[in-house]
Amino acid sequence: MGKVFVTGHKNPDTDSIASAISYAYLKQQIGMNAEAVRIGVVNNETAYALEYFGFEAPRLIEKAAPEVAEIILVDHNEKQQSVDDFDDVRVIEVVDHHRIANFETNDPLYYRAEPVGCTATILNKLYKEHNVEIPKNIAGLMLSALISDSLLFKSPTFTEQDRVAADEMATLAGVDALEYGLDMLKAGADLSNKTLEDLVKLDAKEFAINEAKVEIAQVNAIDVNDVMKRQPELENLLYRVIAEKGLDLFLFVVTDILNNDSIVLALGKEADRASAAFDVTLVNNTATLKGVVSRKKQIVPVLTEALKDVE
Amino acid sequence: MGKVFVTGHKNPDTDSIASAISYAYLKQQIGMNAEAVRIGVVNNETAYALEYFGFEAPRLIEKAAPEVAEIILVDHNEKQQSVDDFDDVRVIEVVDHHRIANFETNDPLYYRAEPVGCTATILNKLYKEHNVEIPKNIAGLMLSALISDSLLFKSPTFTEQDRVAADEMATLAGVDALEYGLDMLKAGADLSNKTLEDLVKLDAKEFAINEAKVEIAQVNAIDVNDVMKRQPELENLLYRVIAEKGLDLFLFVVTDILNNDSIVLALGKEADRASAAFDVTLVNNTATLKGVVSRKKQIVPVLTEALKDVE
Repeated sequence: MGKVFVTGHKNPDTDSIASAISYAYLKQQIGMNAEAVRIGVVNNETAYALEYFGFEAPRLIEKAAPEVAEIILVDHNEKQQSVDDFDDVRVIEVVDHHRIANFETNDPLYYRAEPVGCTATILNKLYKEHNVEIPKNIAGLMLSALISDSLLFKSPTFTEQDRVAADEMATLAGVDALEYGLDMLKAGADLSNKTLEDLVKLDAKEFAINEAKVEIAQVNAIDVNDVMKRQPELENLLYRVIAEKGLDLFLFVVTDILNNDSIVLALGKEADRASAAFDVTLVNNTATLKGVVSRKKQIVPVLTEALKDVE
Repeated sequence: MGKVFVTGHKNPDTDSIASAISYAYLKQQIGMNAEAVRIGVVNNETAYALEYFGFEAPRLIEKAAPEVAEIILVDHNEKQQSVDDFDDVRVIEVVDHHRIANFETNDPLYYRAEPVGCTATILNKLYKEHNVEIPKNIAGLMLSALISDSLLFKSPTFTEQDRVAADEMATLAGVDALEYGLDMLKAGADLSNKTLEDLVKLDAKEFAINEAKVEIAQVNAIDVNDVMKRQPELENLLYRVIAEKGLDLFLFVVTDILNNDSIVLALGKEADRASAAFDVTLVNNTATLKGVVSRKKQIVPVLTEALKDVE
């Protein structure tokens, strides 16, 4: 059996990087020639976690072939979020916690999705099912993913199963989850070394919602005004992306990690339909979404319903 | 939480019926109001297994709504193989061992697919993960599914994991797997009470293979000539189905359960491309496929490759 790449999604977040490393390690222990890779820049938050627990970032790739013929997806399944040559390789496994869309295979595969807050929670089960011990530093990465995806355990996506996994990982890693977690989130919310171009790409995901092409970028901040004060420049950038990609909607979401609200900047021809769905009125293209921190659970389902008649 | 239907695919085989019953039972034990249902006629083989282990057939439904809002799929995921009102209900779980295609959700869900020979093998793991004991009669049904999907353990789809599950189920059920299995397969291959219309629908599945619309029906027989001697009538029926459904290809596969070969009757505009893919020449629209017993592993992947340029 040849080498297999284990990859998270484009514009990787901490769960995508941590899960690629953690699952590749597990697969290696049970005999697979697996290598964790990434398809995008490591963000500040993830860089903090990697350094804290003594890891190098996985190798950056754009395409999987011809180096490998088979890949494993973690933390995503939608084709447009994956490697550029998705159609030229075979997906042999998926471990994920998102909806399933734009994903199809010719052959049976191993697909493990659970409606939990973080891929790491599922990986914790897989380690147990294979009777492989989670090393201290891998547990640290998995804890980092849990903290990141739940905004320090406060997101509505965070389930009881995630809590159990977080407790186990914190114990294995030997860190205080709340203290370490706040430091990690602050490192991620430090946008001082980021250009606006960086912010737009940092954690952006494209979705095909019915017939609408939507991109949603999310940025965590300690002070949302650090970002919003640059709104005019930001809009210029986003309009350019909308035009280049032919998007129907771009949502730029700035999440206040201390108060757990988000400011959304909505542009594109479906912006009004989107804001109506959230029951807010856009003023100068922006609105506050009270208590909204989760793209997956609080934004995508609302848009899916709102855009169901788009042709 | 309202009632949830657990259903296998249309034209249900033994795995679809047995897995619906077995998984509904497991979900009931862990607190879900789950009911096994079926979306098609129970075949002779399944009827034999149900009676042997003391079960009634699950209730026949066509649509899930408005009785339930949520469903669980076992042994399939492709929309066209499922309930007629698939788009009006929410799929909250899938337990399956097929490729993933024509399946999309708005929300995260529990999706457990493994590349094994039978859904029952995965259910055996799920019982263990939930620490629920498999009752003797449920074990008998799960064994029946394993025997059915593997043609008494001889199909290339039958993995080591399936073998382990079959051994465990035979022990729990207290039957001799080979003896019981041959009796069950023979009951299924007894086509004496079946009309040709029955045979065409008995175990037929529709596939969207690239742009081609394909239907593949499979019938097990002790003597393939029992079926093939009626080829002219059969062709009349199949041409009618092709016209009504706008199919590009209909493969009618008669599998010799004692010798493990199949005779294929191929009709429709892609028949030649299909036969070329199997490296056989159609004579009077038929050919022998030596050693072919598995639609999933030995037919669908070959067709997928052969029809990849169909527009």
